[in-house]
Formats: sequence, C-alpha cells, structure tokens
Amino acid sequence: MEIFDLIVIGGGPGGYHAAERAAHSGYHTLVIEKEKLGGVCLNEGCIPSKAFLNSAKVYDHAFKGGAYGVSTENVVFDQKLVLKRKDRVVRRLVAGVAQQLKQRQVTVVKGVGIITGKSKEGFQVQIDQTEYVGKRLLIATGSTPIIPPIEGLKEANASGNILSSREILDLDSIPAKLTIVGGGIIGLEMAAYFQTVGSQVTVVEMLPKIAGNTDSDLTDVLQKSLEKKGVNFFLSSKVTRIDAQQLTYVKADQEYVLVHDKLLLSIGRRPATDHLGLENIGVEMAKNKAIITDLQSRTNIANVYAVGDVNGKSMLAHTAYREAEVAINTMLGEKDSIHYDAIPAVVYTTQELATVGLTEIEAKAKGFEYQVLSLPVAYSGRHLAETDDANGLIKLIVDKKSNTLLGAHLAMQYASEIILTLSMAVDLKLTVKTLSRLVYPHPTVGELIKDTLLSL
Amino acid sequence: MEIFDLIVIGGGPGGYHAAERAAHSGYHTLVIEKEKLGGVCLNEGCIPSKAFLNSAKVYDHAFKGGAYGVSTENVVFDQKLVLKRKDRVVRRLVAGVAQQLKQRQVTVVKGVGIITGKSKEGFQVQIDQTEYVGKRLLIATGSTPIIPPIEGLKEANASGNILSSREILDLDSIPAKLTIVGGGIIGLEMAAYFQTVGSQVTVVEMLPKIAGNTDSDLTDVLQKSLEKKGVNFFLSSKVTRIDAQQLTYVKADQEYVLVHDKLLLSIGRRPATDHLGLENIGVEMAKNKAIITDLQSRTNIANVYAVGDVNGKSMLAHTAYREAEVAINTMLGEKDSIHYDAIPAVVYTTQELATVGLTEIEAKAKGFEYQVLSLPVAYSGRHLAETDDANGLIKLIVDKKSNTLLGAHLAMQYASEIILTLSMAVDLKLTVKTLSRLVYPHPTVGELIKDTLLSL
Repeated sequence: MEIFDLIVIGGGPGGYHAAERAAHSGYHTLVIEKEKLGGVCLNEGCIPSKAFLNSAKVYDHAFKGGAYGVSTENVVFDQKLVLKRKDRVVRRLVAGVAQQLKQRQVTVVKGVGIITGKSKEGFQVQIDQTEYVGKRLLIATGSTPIIPPIEGLKEANASGNILSSREILDLDSIPAKLTIVGGGIIGLEMAAYFQTVGSQVTVVEMLPKIAGNTDSDLTDVLQKSLEKKGVNFFLSSKVTRIDAQQLTYVKADQEYVLVHDKLLLSIGRRPATDHLGLENIGVEMAKNKAIITDLQSRTNIANVYAVGDVNGKSMLAHTAYREAEVAINTMLGEKDSIHYDAIPAVVYTTQELATVGLTEIEAKAKGFEYQVLSLPVAYSGRHLAETDDANGLIKLIVDKKSNTLLGAHLAMQYASEIILTLSMAVDLKLTVKTLSRLVYPHPTVGELIKDTLLSL
Repeated sequence: MEIFDLIVIGGGPGGYHAAERAAHSGYHTLVIEKEKLGGVCLNEGCIPSKAFLNSAKVYDHAFKGGAYGVSTENVVFDQKLVLKRKDRVVRRLVAGVAQQLKQRQVTVVKGVGIITGKSKEGFQVQIDQTEYVGKRLLIATGSTPIIPPIEGLKEANASGNILSSREILDLDSIPAKLTIVGGGIIGLEMAAYFQTVGSQVTVVEMLPKIAGNTDSDLTDVLQKSLEKKGVNFFLSSKVTRIDAQQLTYVKADQEYVLVHDKLLLSIGRRPATDHLGLENIGVEMAKNKAIITDLQSRTNIANVYAVGDVNGKSMLAHTAYREAEVAINTMLGEKDSIHYDAIPAVVYTTQELATVGLTEIEAKAKGFEYQVLSLPVAYSGRHLAETDDANGLIKLIVDKKSNTLLGAHLAMQYASEIILTLSMAVDLKLTVKTLSRLVYPHPTVGELIKDTLLSL
C-alpha cells in the first residue's frame, strides 16, 4: 500500500496551498477533494463575486459616465454573459490549481475522505472502498452555509426562490426584488451587485449594524453608499418566517412583511466537520464543531493539522493560506507561527472597506492607551481626480506606548490593495516614525497613510 | 522688518509640504509662489493627467463593456466636460493647499522671489520692491520643460499646434492626429489618453525604448498594450524638423515625415534655477544647473536647502515631499536622511507600471549577485476576474547575499497602489522570508508578491 507523507482532506485554498508547499519540500502528498479544486472561495465565493462586481462597475461607468464626460444610450446589462464570463474565469483558475498540483506531483483523488483510524504506518483515510495512509494529516474541509431553523423555510425552498451564496452566483437573470437575509460580507457584496445592475435590494440584519465587527465609521460609509444606490436596510430585525415570495421579520416588537422574487440566505458559515471521522482518532473540537488548533495549526493529535474555515478562527481564504504554510513549516521542523492579530479583511462591494488589526472598540476593551488618527478620503488628490464621490476615510489606531499601529481601517477606492502595507505595519510592529518616513508614490490613494500619520 | 525662520521659494509639492512641516514645528514661515500653489504636479501634471485618464477608463468601459455583459449605443466623449471637471478638481486641491497653509499660519506671497544676498539677520529675498529676510532658505522652484533647438520649431509655435505638457492638459477638443515627441512618462500618459478617446497617436522617441530606464519587460508590456489600442511608436528616431502641421524625423539614416493636427513636445524637464539669484549667496550647481544637495537636502551653503525637481535628482513629486521632510527635520536637528534607492515611480496610462529600487540591468552593473523572480499577472485570480487582458507581470530582483529585495517591478492593475508595499520592503531591507510570511488579503492583485516570493 502506498504511504503518503501527507494526506490533505479538502482542496480549497488551505488544502491546495498546503499540498503545494508540502510537495515543494519533497513530501509525497495526496489531496482529497469531494467536489472541485479551489473550494468555495474560488468556485462559489471570492472569485465569482469579484467577477460580478467588476461587471457592475463597468455598468456603472457606462450608465453614469456623464460626470466624467462620457454619455451613452440604451445601456443593457446581460446577466447571462456575466455568468458565462464568471464560469470561464473560474474554470481557468481551477485548471490552474490542478496544473500546479500536477507539476508538483501531488496525487489528487476525487471523493469524500473519511478518517477511519491510525495504524503504525499512519492515519487511515477511506474514500469509497479504497484506503489511503498518511504519516501526517491536514484537514481543510472548510465550512458550509448555516441554514437557520426559520419557520416556512423548508417548504419555501421548493420554490427555487430561496438561494444560498452558491446559488445566487449562478443566477442568470436579475431578480426585480431581492431580499438578503444577513448583512455580512457576502450579503453586502451581493446587495451592491444586484442593486447596481437593476434589482430592488433589501437587507435584513439581526444586529444593529452591518458587516459584523467592522469599525462603524467604515460601515456607516458603506451603508450610506448602498442606501444612495437604493438598497434598503432593516437592522435589528429578526426574521421569523420565510415563504416562497415573502419574508416576515420583527423589529422593535412590530411585525413586517417583505415581498421578494428571490431571497438570499447569508447568515454565516459553520465548520464542516460532520461525517469526517475525526472521532476515530480523537481530534478535539469546540462546541461549534470547529477543530481546535494552535498558532502552528496543530490539533491535539500529533501530526494532525487543521487549516482554514474548519478551525473556525477567521474564515478567510488568506488566513487558510497562511495557516497552511505554518502547518507545513511546522511539519518540516521550521519555526513559524501565524499572527492572528495581523490578518486583513476586505469588503469589496462598490465601496471597498479594508481593515487589519484592532478596531477602536477592541483597542479600548483590551486596555490599550491609544490615539485615533483619521482623515477623510477627500484629502487624496488621486481620489478626487478619479471620483466625485467624496465619502470614505482612513482611521488608524496608534498605541501611545509603543507608537505602533494596533489597527488600520480604510473605506476608499483601492482599499483592498492598500491594506497590505498596513497589514505589514501591524504584523512587523513598525513605528509611526518608520512608516511616515517612507516614500509614498504620488498621486496614490495610499498616500493618505502618510498624510494621516503626519497629522500626529 | 519681519524676519522669518524659513523662506520657501516655490509653492509646489516640495515647497508647500516643507512650509507645512516647518510651521507645524513652530517656524515662522513664508512661501513665495510665482503662479499657483501646488506647482506643476497639481496644476498641470500628475493630478490633471489622472483626471483625464480616469475619464478614458470610463469611456473604455462604456465603449468596450460587451465582454463584461454591458452593451451600449451612441457613446460620446465630451472633452469640454472632462476639462471642466479637471479644472474643478485642481481648483479644489489648490484651495486645499492654501487652506492648510493658512491653518498653519504660513505667510504666502505671490511673486517672483530673487535671492539678493545675506546679512547677519539672514538671507534676503526680494519680490518686486519688497525685501524679506529668512534665517533659513529652502529652494523648491521646480523645473521647466526642455525646449529643444529643433529647426522650424520657433515658427511652428505661432500656429498654436505645438503643445507643452501644460497646454495639452488644457485642450478642449480631441485632435484627429496627435504626434508626441518623447516617450517618457508624460508622453506615454498622454498617448494612452488621446488614443483611447479618439486621436490617432504617434510617439517619436530618440532612444530605442520607451519610459527611460524602466525595466524593459515592463515597457514591452506597455508598448504592446498601447500598440494594440492603435498607438504608433517610432523609436530610435531623431526629430530633425517641426512644422505647424508636420514633423520630420530620421531613423536609420532614412528621413520620414509625419503629419499632425497637434504635436506634444515632452522630451524632459530641467531644473528651474535661472534668475533666482543663487550666485548672490554662492549656491553650488551642477553643469545642468541643478542645485547640488546631500541626503539631508542641504546645499553647500549653511541653512540653504533645495528640494524637488530643482536638485535634478528624481523629478517626482513624492521625492520632493520626502526631501522637504528631511530638510525640515535636519533644520530641527533631528537625524533623518532620504533613501534615494527606495523611491517608487509610476507610469499610469491605461496599463499601470510601477517600480522601486534597482532594475535587473542596474543590479548587474552594480555587481550584485542577484536572482530574478517573476510571474505573469495571469496568476492573479483578481486580475482574471476583473479583466480579460492577460498582459502584465511582476518581477522581483533579490540579492542572493542578504536575501532582500534590490528592486521590484510591476506591470498590472493597481500597480501604483501595490508598489508601496514593495517600496517599504526595499527601504527597510526586509528579507524574502519576512515578506513571504505576511498575510496577503485574497483576492487581491498584490498577492502576486507572495506567490512570486514562494516560487523561490
């Protein structure tokens, strides 16, 4: 029987990256994927949504270019074409992942892997009737959407009007009325997209604000921007019933009904640890079924690692990547650990938000003596040159003691690409002085970092 | 007589930033500006060109959105509106500079300042009949376009068809045939703009490649991209005569004639040190009339500093900013120096190029043992999701001895904003290991940095 140095269960970002890194280091590696290489992120998440949002931007330019000197007539949006293009992009990227794994001589097996036990040769994983043995195990099975136990939902599902985040990215027409349950990242990105290209979108969120723990100065900008486009927000609103064509929610003890053509359920995801056989080797899980891992992505069982959504820590593809690297480095005996305090997060929509490190609320809660430095985006020459929308800001949380950044929060054009510099600053604990003495290219929106630091 | 702690001659990026920093530190400061605060960059350079290029992008989206699911009819480009918007943006930014100087209680005088001498109170600067005295002097008079002694040019000028980089940014119609003499940054940005919005553009460049010393892997991408749009390039071509409606050039001993409606002369700029009275206090200049400065922006005369284009070192606004900061810090007795080896440069056009540090050719010439790491932009999921144009690359020059980046070169979307991270890496001499262990947000184009480093 073939014995692998490493068996990776799950071929998403965490899994395929781990396999590549392991194989790069000479490990004989197997990846087990039950559906498609690339996982949720690539097939039904980050990448498809970016393709959609890009088409929305093109549409916006075609439709509202007047202010920039461009007038048009008869602008038509073709969702079928957008879908085709999205599928093509995804196919190409999935093929790229397969190609890279092949180049590294990683064995890829399609199927559901179940951990059945451990022998002296290694961990046993079964796919259908075949058993594979690996000296090490890396679990990267990701997460699945949470389906809430809401009244009526089961029956409503049969109508085809109730969509998961996967299904909405396969819609080939634009619904007239779209209700989105859940104002998290996925819900907001889809709200921005569908409202821009023609839907009347309503977001219903249980919490009093959108985008979870994201700094509220940022989420205010985003909410206003989406409201200006026409999105309705019902916050602090609890959904009590979902039917095929309407939703019932309660806000401040008052019941309301909302009519929809399609409804997106995006209230969160949970670690995918069911039916994986973790109990057969004794891998410890938290109450929410997330695999418990340390800063080296190790579980409680020697030589068993878990990365990505399945450990429930951050549920972002780039966290999975880094956890995968740390896991492989740890297997190889190299010292490495993941800095969970320097993980950036981005909300794309039509108004990019990007953050890293602590929010002001978190800094306060943790007892830091901090100072907030902030500038409106209108201080940026490039921003003004490129858009008439003056909303947005940069907000930096500076630790008074060490003079380093505890957190950085951006609501602006290019925020997704600019945040990397700030992630680096938070991760490497660079001082304000070091950061402010770099040369920032002009004109860029990123210069706002320097302008903000110099306001100290 | 009022004695200033600092007199700044020139209110462009170097000058106004120096004045703000000086006033921020308590200096009684005077700025002398002969035309408009903000200088060339803000009034007739970086900012106006970015407003133009943004309109070109909107036009491209409106005109060629089909691939992204957006179809339009009767797309019309209105250069008059673009110009109006550009003027509004510039006015707003100039007002912002004035406002900030006012807030800091900087005195601003409009006029031409001439250094007349030095008394025991300080340096004397005369504007018309008024004399001002400053304990310190900072010269930030910038640069002026080089007007080459080409046959016919003087007479052709009367036609109004021969434009400087200032005049082309005030054109209120799109010329049918535009010839650009000089394939540097300004020439290329204008080529991209006018070709996109309807001109037939031809670039004539004396050197065998465009964009000066920029890495030729990058300039190849840019040239191909512009050629695909329809721009003609005549390289290694020496202009021998300019007439109102035609240009004569010689290539490989063969003479050619090119017909134009407008012609842009953008062959470079030279330090503006004429009639400034530098000789009255003995400030040393190089042969090209650039003021000689050190890493603290000091001239040979104590308490006289020079920043920005006038020192002829880098001729970029962000270099001027940093030189200004270093000058003020040095005046204040704080240790600071500018790192000329970590200054980013960006070519915007419709295909962004951004670079920092050494090119491969420079690394070789300096005797480094280096390794080139490179990936095509098609490795980026975000890039693929957002554009069907697969051209572009990242190229990193790694010093084998120290394992740090000597240089970084990008041809890709968002290059201008991504380069900051790489500037930081070059400036702070971060190792490949440090850089590759950061968490890069997904999906971003900036992730390519990590992908490239991991290919090592």
